[in-house]
Amino acid sequence: MHMNATSLQKDAPNFEAILAAHARIAPRIHRTPVVTSTSLDEIAGAHLYFKCENLQKTGSFKIRGATNAVFSLTDEEARHGVVAPSSGNHAAALALAARWRGVPAFIVMPSNSSAAKMRAVESYGGKITQCEPNMASREETCAEVMQKTGAHLVHPYNDPRVIAGQGTAALELIEDVGELDVVIAPVSGGGLLSGTAIAAKSMRPGIRVIGGEPRNADDAHRSLAAKKIEPAAPFETMADGLRATLCPLTFSILQSFVDEVSVVTEEELTAAMLLLWERMKLVVEPSGAVAAAPAMNRRIRSEGKRIGIILSGGNLDLHKLPF
Amino acid sequence: MHMNATSLQKDAPNFEAILAAHARIAPRIHRTPVVTSTSLDEIAGAHLYFKCENLQKTGSFKIRGATNAVFSLTDEEARHGVVAPSSGNHAAALALAARWRGVPAFIVMPSNSSAAKMRAVESYGGKITQCEPNMASREETCAEVMQKTGAHLVHPYNDPRVIAGQGTAALELIEDVGELDVVIAPVSGGGLLSGTAIAAKSMRPGIRVIGGEPRNADDAHRSLAAKKIEPAAPFETMADGLRATLCPLTFSILQSFVDEVSVVTEEELTAAMLLLWERMKLVVEPSGAVAAAPAMNRRIRSEGKRIGIILSGGNLDLHKLPF
Repeated sequence: MHMNATSLQKDAPNFEAILAAHARIAPRIHRTPVVTSTSLDEIAGAHLYFKCENLQKTGSFKIRGATNAVFSLTDEEARHGVVAPSSGNHAAALALAARWRGVPAFIVMPSNSSAAKMRAVESYGGKITQCEPNMASREETCAEVMQKTGAHLVHPYNDPRVIAGQGTAALELIEDVGELDVVIAPVSGGGLLSGTAIAAKSMRPGIRVIGGEPRNADDAHRSLAAKKIEPAAPFETMADGLRATLCPLTFSILQSFVDEVSVVTEEELTAAMLLLWERMKLVVEPSGAVAAAPAMNRRIRSEGKRIGIILSGGNLDLHKLPF
Repeated sequence: MHMNATSLQKDAPNFEAILAAHARIAPRIHRTPVVTSTSLDEIAGAHLYFKCENLQKTGSFKIRGATNAVFSLTDEEARHGVVAPSSGNHAAALALAARWRGVPAFIVMPSNSSAAKMRAVESYGGKITQCEPNMASREETCAEVMQKTGAHLVHPYNDPRVIAGQGTAALELIEDVGELDVVIAPVSGGGLLSGTAIAAKSMRPGIRVIGGEPRNADDAHRSLAAKKIEPAAPFETMADGLRATLCPLTFSILQSFVDEVSVVTEEELTAAMLLLWERMKLVVEPSGAVAAAPAMNRRIRSEGKRIGIILSGGNLDLHKLPF
């Protein structure tokens, strides 16, 4: 395995943790299909294998990490429930995983979260505490909820159990497809890309691991270039699930195992998303299409290659489409 | 098998023809996934198994019947190509099947067909002849093309080879799911519902076979009630793939093997379609959602039942959605 061992944090999960996560969560989640399309292969000039986490329970891969974390807790740890700050897919996933475990889930959501996302959390039995839409209020509110309830924190990505869970998508993809030259996953906080990289480099040491990131939220790309965590870009991206920034844990994993972060414009993202809907008949959210965009816009060396792509989610407002 | 043998036409395909069709086409088409959703099960009060023909090659089940017909031809019959009148999914399917066989496909399309549909046919190498948008011009133009080219007619549904091919979707569905109490397919010209009914009643004699039809195009419902083929309704439906009417062959099969045709309003159709997109992340066209609408709107006796639903296609203009 190619790695830069000096930079990898000690608490980074290894491949055995991903295998254990898979055994733990497989009975509860969907083994999502891997689909292909002749016409998209022609557009990309490559063989594309799409892992459909948009068809996953709760509509995204986040249920993998949340379920692994919640079912890794001892009864004592789980007793007072779990808590997370999240405005998006992790919130719904944690609420459902906690319901499966039979404990409460406390979700700290910014007051400007969409009504649809709040309803999704509540439909799984999650208890919402609103905070101001900024990082300081979010962390403060989260600390208050933990103090008051004794709930256990399950961070969306700064958590080895969550990262190990997210790695099970790539594990299944490679089990199903066999040889792959490249695997691409979206990057935001880096949980999915970290788990993907650990699984992929362990199963196929020669594989190239690429992150997909919107140019308007390209902090992971800049961080790897600068060899330190760079702040979030000030721009808006339609990929609203990709606004988080790396933490030291995920940064260290990306530095060790990720070969490239490919940035795509909003136009490239829209084009990729429309093709996925039109040709593959899949509802994929913008954040979910960001791993497809580099290959479909030929932003990476992909000619003739076998490329695995993780379509991470399908939750979006169907009344506000970008096309 | 429950049947009214007196009414069944002699050229109706039997279950052996469907098995033979499956062996013939399986190497060329997708074995589409069967998907489930806890939240849709709750809405329907039943266990729903969705056969995803929207994920099929060319975006609909039509490739099944077209491929079976084209590969059933002798070299002599196939030599001058194939021809069909169709403005929709059968047109694209026949063009692709003919390309696979290495013969030309002549498609007679009304001059008001959408540009997108014409492009789809051309992208598969089909040769389009335009006709006036009425039945007389369509048949006359089709006859002219046959006269001039010597091409072999592959009608969208009035053809036992096509009906046998369409029946392979239900065959796969029942193979994958096992026991089913009910199976529902859309009905228009009746090819898919005929094939579905023959396969389902042969594999599971106790199964209930239901057609889904828009109230605004309810001629199959009226025809079965009147025991004779009734003319098309004069109304418009968003399910633009469901404007054909039964032919004597499909009418005789429906009379023999179909238990009920359930009609749904445009509002029920839109609601079902939106749920399929939102909850299942599947792009399904209105005609494709019409088999889901009866169960999801509790229009049929479905409480606690295991219900197979054929989502027949996913081709529509994403810039003109009904929601």
